[in-house]
Amino acid sequence: MRRVVDVRITFLGTSAGMPTRERGLPSVLIEADGELVLFDCGEGTQRQLMKVNASLGKRMKIFVSHMHGDHIFGLPGLIQTMNLINRTHPLEVFGPPGLKEFIEQTTVPAMCKPSFDLEIHEVEGGEVYKCRQYTVFGSWTEHSVPNLAYKITFGEGRGRFLPERAKALGIPEGPLWGILKAGSPVVLEGGRVVNPYEVLGEPVKGISVVYSGDTRPCESVKRLAAGAEILIHEATFSRELEGKAEAEGHSTAHGAASVAKEANVGTLILTHFSARYHDLAQLEIEAKEIFSGARVAKDLESYDLKA
Amino acid sequence: MRRVVDVRITFLGTSAGMPTRERGLPSVLIEADGELVLFDCGEGTQRQLMKVNASLGKRMKIFVSHMHGDHIFGLPGLIQTMNLINRTHPLEVFGPPGLKEFIEQTTVPAMCKPSFDLEIHEVEGGEVYKCRQYTVFGSWTEHSVPNLAYKITFGEGRGRFLPERAKALGIPEGPLWGILKAGSPVVLEGGRVVNPYEVLGEPVKGISVVYSGDTRPCESVKRLAAGAEILIHEATFSRELEGKAEAEGHSTAHGAASVAKEANVGTLILTHFSARYHDLAQLEIEAKEIFSGARVAKDLESYDLKA
Repeated sequence: MRRVVDVRITFLGTSAGMPTRERGLPSVLIEADGELVLFDCGEGTQRQLMKVNASLGKRMKIFVSHMHGDHIFGLPGLIQTMNLINRTHPLEVFGPPGLKEFIEQTTVPAMCKPSFDLEIHEVEGGEVYKCRQYTVFGSWTEHSVPNLAYKITFGEGRGRFLPERAKALGIPEGPLWGILKAGSPVVLEGGRVVNPYEVLGEPVKGISVVYSGDTRPCESVKRLAAGAEILIHEATFSRELEGKAEAEGHSTAHGAASVAKEANVGTLILTHFSARYHDLAQLEIEAKEIFSGARVAKDLESYDLKA
Repeated sequence: MRRVVDVRITFLGTSAGMPTRERGLPSVLIEADGELVLFDCGEGTQRQLMKVNASLGKRMKIFVSHMHGDHIFGLPGLIQTMNLINRTHPLEVFGPPGLKEFIEQTTVPAMCKPSFDLEIHEVEGGEVYKCRQYTVFGSWTEHSVPNLAYKITFGEGRGRFLPERAKALGIPEGPLWGILKAGSPVVLEGGRVVNPYEVLGEPVKGISVVYSGDTRPCESVKRLAAGAEILIHEATFSRELEGKAEAEGHSTAHGAASVAKEANVGTLILTHFSARYHDLAQLEIEAKEIFSGARVAKDLESYDLKA
């Protein structure tokens, strides 16, 4: 039987461009199975991580959406602090071209060249990372600079092994069953090839969380988010600034809700709010007109789900 | 009569190396006469400035003590935000060699090349900056990398003009008096040179605040701080880590207090505390054993003085 994984999503910073007294710069933390995944790392992220008791010594991957300062200026300090606490686990950071140069330039001259393994991957979308617990896909969106939206999927897997089907196909109980369970084809005596799908039930879809980064409402995020449990979408502006959003490659709450609706996601969580908005109630109302499962993120607030 | 200037010192971050839940990374704000002066700019400084209602559009100078990440990683984000709010005043940043390269590398690739005038001055100590309101001196200290302690002096000035002395020297009332008041010598008919000190009272000493940056207790800071109203000195460790402090170029609370005592300052404010200390009472006790005018800084706490 498949093990259930507890996934916790925590908003570390929900502001756009510049922080406010109430909102930090962009970063979303996902915790699952003792591992941390960060989407973006705005200035102040390391301190926000401390505030939610997330250990900087744990296994961690960071996925950067784009190379604007408000999404990456927390990286050098986070890396320096990991150094100071004698982190041993490697740290892998994924993001668009330019990421490697930025990290290398900021960490070396400022005397925080990491003593742990720091692997920087400049990626181009598609399957960006895969491990036993989850898979991450990236997809380019429409912003003023190249921006990757990411989908992280937990609990995805092959279907259950069906012994009665294996028996019906004349596959003897034993090592061949194990090979098929693990997802590889086998060759029977006599030369017939049996593919795994012939003896496995429906594949397990898993549960996906999509993070848009900075973007206009676009087809790319709609496709990436199709059927996702949670879509975390930027909503920099309210509806009256739709023209500005369009011109600058951002979304209104309304625009983000349209994407959520068409992608048929479970819940839409809006984030990345312009500093001009003190009260976000109006943005939530605008989104809910289109998609009732919309809500606005708050700094240090968490959402729990099971994958 | 000399105008009295209100000077407010606010601690924006009092942690060393890494932040804690309670303490941000190093930065001290001095506000005087509508102008802002920052000493160091650790990650998160821009948000701390917002929390104390310091406008990022105002005239500002930043003095960086040394090029360790925890003292400078707030610069790129601060500059980006100044850009976003359409700052018009120039920003001048002073600090040790390496500062220019760091700022240029972090601001350009991350797409926040400033639209206002950004002047970066790599300085070597001595008189670093002088304007009508204040003078800043720098002095190299003893740390693991080059570190400048700074002394900012407000209200310093020439002595009062003494008309009776001018008359006694046979200087006719008129333009020559103005030249002498402004601090330049004049030549009388007949060729006698009169120097300003001959017609001016005692120079006004002004009021000084010294910021140590990172350092061992050292002669350089003692000399710079001699007679200062306030010495802001690092106190990374408690007395039981004296060996570690010495080895790493840091001070204990006790060591900082010795400097304050020998320099005969008015008040010693300790800052830059290792993240290992949750409660700082012990550090204050250790300092007070040597120098009763010692206290520990707290994030967002201010000290007011008149210069």
